[in-house]
Amino acid sequence: MPRYRATVTITLRPAILDVQGKTVEQALHALGFTTVEHVRIGKHITFELEAADRSIATEQCNAMSNQLLANPIIEDYRVTIEDVEP
Amino acid sequence: MPRYRATVTITLRPAILDVQGKTVEQALHALGFTTVEHVRIGKHITFELEAADRSIATEQCNAMSNQLLANPIIEDYRVTIEDVEP
Repeated sequence: MPRYRATVTITLRPAILDVQGKTVEQALHALGFTTVEHVRIGKHITFELEAADRSIATEQCNAMSNQLLANPIIEDYRVTIEDVEP
Repeated sequence: MPRYRATVTITLRPAILDVQGKTVEQALHALGFTTVEHVRIGKHITFELEAADRSIATEQCNAMSNQLLANPIIEDYRVTIEDVEP
């Protein structure tokens, strides 16, 4: 079966307060980067998987995101699939 | 001054063991996603900043990454800069 490289980017939904982001923003201001605003911190997850084709790989990554990787109540996710060169 | 939207992606260096990634990998196997391998978990940080031009914005983001956002001993970072529509 073909192998794919998946990237799942997980971000907090815009309505959710990002406490970690706020803390980093204040630290950046204290370091002199005073124009920085709207800091949001999410996750960047990469892995490889096998699937019959690209659309099945995408479907599996969506299922993984909904079941484990993301918290769909407060987070959005975006899946990108690339071929792995054999 | 023009505003830019920055994305900083922070990943563990390839030689560094990703304990969190390993744990997620085992959980995905337990859920039936048995072909998943090489799970690596990094950070996806987005923010806006002001700078005279794009190259100064990039330079500032590199400085922020080295000083605060990433741990250069064990992590790599990648900066992407986009224009913010006024």
